[in-house]
Amino acid sequence: MSSTPARTIEAFDAVDLIHAKRDHSELSTPQIDWLIDAYTRGYVGDEQMAAMTMAIFLNGMSRREIRDMTMAMINSGERMSFEGLGKPTTDKHSTGGVGDKITLPLMPLVAVFGAAVPQLSGRGLGHTGGTLDKLESIPGWRANLSNEEMFAQLQDVGGVICAAGSGLAPADGKLYALRDITGTVEAIPLIASSIMSKKIAEGTSALVLDVKFGSGAFLKDIERSRELARTMVALGEDAGVATSALLTNMNVPLGLAIGNANEVRESLEVLAGGGPADVVELTVALAREMLTLAGIVDVDVEAALKDGRAMDKWNAVIRAQGGDPTAVMPVAKETHTVLADRDGVLVDQQALPFGIGAWRLGAGRARKQDPVQHAAGIDLHAKPGDTVRRGEPLFTLSADEPERFARALEAVEGAWRIGDPGEPILDGGPLIAERIGN
Amino acid sequence: MSSTPARTIEAFDAVDLIHAKRDHSELSTPQIDWLIDAYTRGYVGDEQMAAMTMAIFLNGMSRREIRDMTMAMINSGERMSFEGLGKPTTDKHSTGGVGDKITLPLMPLVAVFGAAVPQLSGRGLGHTGGTLDKLESIPGWRANLSNEEMFAQLQDVGGVICAAGSGLAPADGKLYALRDITGTVEAIPLIASSIMSKKIAEGTSALVLDVKFGSGAFLKDIERSRELARTMVALGEDAGVATSALLTNMNVPLGLAIGNANEVRESLEVLAGGGPADVVELTVALAREMLTLAGIVDVDVEAALKDGRAMDKWNAVIRAQGGDPTAVMPVAKETHTVLADRDGVLVDQQALPFGIGAWRLGAGRARKQDPVQHAAGIDLHAKPGDTVRRGEPLFTLSADEPERFARALEAVEGAWRIGDPGEPILDGGPLIAERIGN
Repeated sequence: MSSTPARTIEAFDAVDLIHAKRDHSELSTPQIDWLIDAYTRGYVGDEQMAAMTMAIFLNGMSRREIRDMTMAMINSGERMSFEGLGKPTTDKHSTGGVGDKITLPLMPLVAVFGAAVPQLSGRGLGHTGGTLDKLESIPGWRANLSNEEMFAQLQDVGGVICAAGSGLAPADGKLYALRDITGTVEAIPLIASSIMSKKIAEGTSALVLDVKFGSGAFLKDIERSRELARTMVALGEDAGVATSALLTNMNVPLGLAIGNANEVRESLEVLAGGGPADVVELTVALAREMLTLAGIVDVDVEAALKDGRAMDKWNAVIRAQGGDPTAVMPVAKETHTVLADRDGVLVDQQALPFGIGAWRLGAGRARKQDPVQHAAGIDLHAKPGDTVRRGEPLFTLSADEPERFARALEAVEGAWRIGDPGEPILDGGPLIAERIGN
Repeated sequence: MSSTPARTIEAFDAVDLIHAKRDHSELSTPQIDWLIDAYTRGYVGDEQMAAMTMAIFLNGMSRREIRDMTMAMINSGERMSFEGLGKPTTDKHSTGGVGDKITLPLMPLVAVFGAAVPQLSGRGLGHTGGTLDKLESIPGWRANLSNEEMFAQLQDVGGVICAAGSGLAPADGKLYALRDITGTVEAIPLIASSIMSKKIAEGTSALVLDVKFGSGAFLKDIERSRELARTMVALGEDAGVATSALLTNMNVPLGLAIGNANEVRESLEVLAGGGPADVVELTVALAREMLTLAGIVDVDVEAALKDGRAMDKWNAVIRAQGGDPTAVMPVAKETHTVLADRDGVLVDQQALPFGIGAWRLGAGRARKQDPVQHAAGIDLHAKPGDTVRRGEPLFTLSADEPERFARALEAVEGAWRIGDPGEPILDGGPLIAERIGN
C-alpha cells in the first residue's frame, strides 16, 4: 500500500469558481484540483462549498468535470493497492435499499472461487441499513481493522468486511457531511464522485455496482439511476477498474428480514442453500458479475451455496474478525404481529414505509452518533404475489421498547394491501432490470 | 422610535426548506419567517443559508416570497419611526456607480423645502465609492450618530447623512456578508429585499431609488435593472412607503471627479450653482422625485442651487455633525496627468475601468477593514462628446503613493478613445432612461 504525494496546484479564488459554475461554465481540471484541495485544507469554507454544491446540483457537471472531481477526491488521501496479493480483487457497492443484506452472503460466495473481496463498508443513516450495523449483531465481531490486518485477511481467508478508514478520500467524507445538511445529497455528479473516489482509492481491480431504483431507493426514478450507473461505470473504466452495474428494483423490500440481527439470520439461510428467492437471485447475479470482471469464469456459483463452501468461508471470515459464527443472535424483548384482515393475494408491499418502520423500531439511526438496536426490525411473512388467509401473520415488528410500535405501525399504514386473485401485483417489475457495462 | 417584538413562529427543518427551493417550490410565509429568524439566531448555519441563497439565485423567488423575505429581515431588528417629526420624510437610495456623489448636494437641496432627509448611508466596497467615505474627507465630520442625535438633527436642520446602525435589519447585514463570499450578490430577490428591508425599517415615508444600468453598474443590463426597480417599488408600496425609481445610465462616470475629497469639491460646485451638467441634472431630477413623493410640489428646485439656500443647508448639516465646511480638503502627494495623443473628439470613457482605477489609487477598499485614502482618485478633464487637442490634459490621477499609478493606468488602458468629429459617442444614451412608479 502506498500514499500518493500531494500535487502542486495553482491558486484560484473560490468566489470566481462559484460564479463560473453558477453561470453554467465548466470548471477546468486545475480549478477542480484546487477547489477540492483547498476545501480539504479548510482554505475554502463550508459556506462556499455549500453554494458550489447547490450550483452543481442545479447546473450539473460534464463527464470530464466529474472525472476530475473524483480524481481530486482520491488525491486528497491515501491510495491503497492490492497488487501484492497475487490474486484478483473484486468488490461490490450498493446504493442502499430496504432489506439489502446482499454483501453478507456475497462476500464469502465470491471468495470461495479464489478472488479477494475487500468490502470496505459503512454504517446506516436514515431508512437504509448499514452492513457494519448488521454484522455487529454477531457477538465479538469487530469492524475496525488496520490496513495490515485487512491485507493479511485477504491473503489468508480471501474476504473481509470492515470499516473504511478515514485516510481514503477524506475530501469525500467532509463533502458528504456538508451535502447532508445543505440539501444536495441527490446530485448525480456528487453521488458518483463520492462513491467512485472511495472505491478507486481502495484499490480494487474490479467493481460491480448495485444501483437501486424505485420507491425505497435513494433515486426513485430508473432514468436517474441509469444515469448514475453509466456515470460511475465510465469513472471506473477511466481509472482502470473493470466496472459494471446492475439496475435493481427497490420498490419492494429485499427478502423477508429488515433490520440487523434478522438480516444476518436470513443471510445464513442463503449461505445454507435456502433463503428467499429474491435474495438468492441477486446474490448469485452479483457474484457472477464480480467473478467475471475478475477474470474467473465457468464456475458454478449456485453449487457453492448448496454444498456448504460459501458457509465455510463465511465462518472463517467471521472468526478472523473476532466473531463467533455459532453464537445465538440477539432477540428483541417485544414483538407485535400484524395479521391479514381478509383472504386474498398480497398485491402491494412498499419498501420505503417498511424501511422507515424498521428504522423507527430502532434498527437504524437518526443521527450519526446514535447506536442501533441489533434485535429491532421487521420480519415479513408474505411477499407480493403470495396468497394469504384472514388471520394469518403478515409481518412481525420487533423492538426492545414497546412504545416504538405505534410510530412504526403509522409508517407502514397503507403501505401494503391484500387484493383479489388476478389483480396486478404492484412490485414494479423484475428484480434485475438492466445491466450496464462492457 | 420603537422596536418590534419578536413574533412567535413555527419551527421547520432547514434541509426541507432548501429542498423545496432547490426543487422549484415556493416557500410559505411562516417558512420564510422561520428561516430568517433562525439564521439571525445562528440556528440555521451559514453553510445552509449559502445553499439556500444559491438555490434562490438560480430558481428565483415569487413577488410574495420577496415581500415575505423583506418583512422577515425588517422584523429581525428594530424599526424606526419619524412620525413625531411633524414633517414629511423622504429618502434616496442609489445602487452605486462610478463618481456617484449625488447624495451630497441632494440631501441639503431637498431639506431646503421643509422635508426631512434621513440619509442612512454606507461605506464603499469594490469599485463604487461610499457616501460616508466621501464625507469623511471633511475634517471633524463624524458618521456615527445615536438615534436621538439623528432625530434632533432632522428636527432642527432637516437633513442628516450618517451610518446606518447595526440595529436595522441585522439579518440583512449577516446575509449580505455571506452572499459576498459565496457568489450570490447579484440575485435580484436578494438585492431587492436587502435594500428595501433597511429603508423600510428606517421609517422613511417616501423613497426614490436611483437604479443604475450600464458597464459601471452592479447590474449591467437595463432589463435586469428594470426588474430590480419594479420589484423594489412594489415592495415599498406594499409597506406603505411612497416609492419610485429612476433607471439611470452608468456607462460613463458621473461628473468629472471620482474619489472622495474631489467628489466633495465637485458637490460644493453644484451647491454653488455650477458643477458638471450631468451631476446637476440627476441631482435636480432626484430632488423633484423626492419632494413630489413627500407631497411638496410647485417648488423651484434649481433656484435653491443658484441662490445659495442649498449651500446654507449643507453648511448647517456639516456643522451639526462636527465638520468644518470651510476647511481645506486634503490634497494628494502625487499626481499623474494623461494627455490627449491627438486632436479630435472624446468618443469613449468607460465607467467601470475608471472606477477600478480610482479604487487602485486608494479611493476604495478591497477588504471591509481597510482605510481609504481621502485625496486619492481621478479627475476627468473631458467628457464624451468634448473636443480635445493633442497635448491637452485628459485626466489626472492622484495618490499618496506614486507606485499606485502603474496599476491604475493599467485599469484605464483602452477605456477611453479620441475619435474623429461625427463619430458616434459611446455613452449609452441619455442619463435618465426611465421612471418607474405611480
